[in-house]
Amino acid sequence: MTPGFLAVDSGGSGLRVVLGTAGGDGDDPRVLGRRASREAVRTGTRGIDPGHLLGQLLPMAESLRKETGVVRIGTVVVGAAGLATLGDALRAELPGALARDLGVRTVALVADAVTAYVGALGPRTGAVVAAGTGLIATGTDLERWYRADGWGHLLGDCGGGAWIGRAGLEAALRAHDGRPGGSAALLARAEERFGPVAGLPGRIYPRTDRPAVLASFAPDVAACAAGDPVAADVLRAAARHMADSAAAVCPRGGEPLVAVTGGLLKLGDALVVPLEEELAKRLPHARRTAAEGDPLHGSVRIASDLATGSFTLPGDEKMLWVTADPDG
Amino acid sequence: MTPGFLAVDSGGSGLRVVLGTAGGDGDDPRVLGRRASREAVRTGTRGIDPGHLLGQLLPMAESLRKETGVVRIGTVVVGAAGLATLGDALRAELPGALARDLGVRTVALVADAVTAYVGALGPRTGAVVAAGTGLIATGTDLERWYRADGWGHLLGDCGGGAWIGRAGLEAALRAHDGRPGGSAALLARAEERFGPVAGLPGRIYPRTDRPAVLASFAPDVAACAAGDPVAADVLRAAARHMADSAAAVCPRGGEPLVAVTGGLLKLGDALVVPLEEELAKRLPHARRTAAEGDPLHGSVRIASDLATGSFTLPGDEKMLWVTADPDG
Repeated sequence: MTPGFLAVDSGGSGLRVVLGTAGGDGDDPRVLGRRASREAVRTGTRGIDPGHLLGQLLPMAESLRKETGVVRIGTVVVGAAGLATLGDALRAELPGALARDLGVRTVALVADAVTAYVGALGPRTGAVVAAGTGLIATGTDLERWYRADGWGHLLGDCGGGAWIGRAGLEAALRAHDGRPGGSAALLARAEERFGPVAGLPGRIYPRTDRPAVLASFAPDVAACAAGDPVAADVLRAAARHMADSAAAVCPRGGEPLVAVTGGLLKLGDALVVPLEEELAKRLPHARRTAAEGDPLHGSVRIASDLATGSFTLPGDEKMLWVTADPDG
Repeated sequence: MTPGFLAVDSGGSGLRVVLGTAGGDGDDPRVLGRRASREAVRTGTRGIDPGHLLGQLLPMAESLRKETGVVRIGTVVVGAAGLATLGDALRAELPGALARDLGVRTVALVADAVTAYVGALGPRTGAVVAAGTGLIATGTDLERWYRADGWGHLLGDCGGGAWIGRAGLEAALRAHDGRPGGSAALLARAEERFGPVAGLPGRIYPRTDRPAVLASFAPDVAACAAGDPVAADVLRAAARHMADSAAAVCPRGGEPLVAVTGGLLKLGDALVVPLEEELAKRLPHARRTAAEGDPLHGSVRIASDLATGSFTLPGDEKMLWVTADPDG
């Protein structure tokens, strides 16, 4: 029987796992079973905690094997948020543990920006902007990977949800103070959502999920954009930042693809219309395309290609790290 | 003997206390003794902790009385950071406690933005920008108080130290990524100060004093401004924000004064030259003047004027709250 694969997407909202088998001869991989947990893998002093990840993944793998009848799992791909900077312990321990406990031969540890890329475009050249609360752009010419932004809400993530929400709240407070650049419409929205503005600092600074709180105001900015020039300017600036990041990672030559993926697209036309304009302006040589799938889909794609030996994407110590058990 | 006063400045770096006596007939107040602690008054679930403030202030008052021979303290003025939003417990408990333990008749609780104002301009109409890590502008027409900004590093404090440092680091990372708006000079400075930029998020996000860490990069931005147009633009934008806030609180008519106070002036000409230009542009009717003194000086001034009955500034429940013991 064909060996199966496990494809994993590990992020802030938990773990999602697929057990599948590779499609041969260019066929799509077959998804045989799915599991999900709502418990995000912990990050400790050693970075992402391998024990906590395995403690969730191994029982899921066991029950998926029983459910699907797939006896052997040859390949595991883990796409994880924070892998580039917080993945050392994972890289050190996961391959050995998976070989020992599941008999896995090939393990790939992949930054979530790369699973987002592959989920959106597959193994083709181009640029993908992943935009949710944060924002990161990933590109490849199939020789190496490029990234732009993804620095978090204080240092960048320019144009992402927290960035838009923060700019909207600043405009609300400018209106409150009588400073230039204010928006009475955003001020009214901010008071609806958070109460009197005098209490706003107390509602935001003590929280540990400040970026998410800021991002929760982004839909209000989008809702105001049709009638409010300040809100429209915030979204236009966000679109410009997104196009800047896409352009920084997109191959200069050829006919690369460009896609945008992530929850921020839910803001609708208020963002999407200026975004299409800015992308067309900054990347006239690139072909705009819709994302094929999400990061879990990217993880499945990488696993299937590794299993069939048709994997062509460039490796990268931090962003796409593949290891094959020499004793396997 | 003339009753004395205590003037207090309570902020992030601790408590500073002066015992003095009021000058009669327009004479300056006499400062007889000083104390300082390096322990910032705690903020708890009830806001600024009155017990923690009194636990430091009462022993200082006792030893100052012994040292100076001033037997009676009639007036206490406490200028405190965060008073407007976090001062409820202080307003509820401090006057009674000071009446009981020190026989004090008159207590004023004053926002640090107002002690900064009075320290800079005294009881005259105008606008004062207090700029350090954060930024707040305070103005008065002697009928009421006006404030602009002071919303903290995520919502505003536009043009303050954290704002300048954050903008400088963003420009450094833009250069690193190859996005527009980057500065190679700021990138080199950022790596000198914080190490390789890949580690920058890990150096900033886990800290509880993020605004101070961001502000620590502001001197680097100033140092680059002479040769680097991106750094110069950051400081020009900061100057514009400062002038915006000053203009929002400055009386429109008459000949108001305008002053800038706080640690940010240490950045020197790179900030001060564009700041003078922006203030002249935004407030042509206001007379620019140097700040007479610091917030503790403002607290002394308010205490002395209250003690002599020559206090003329407008009261404000949140910003300048004076209470006189009716049984005193």
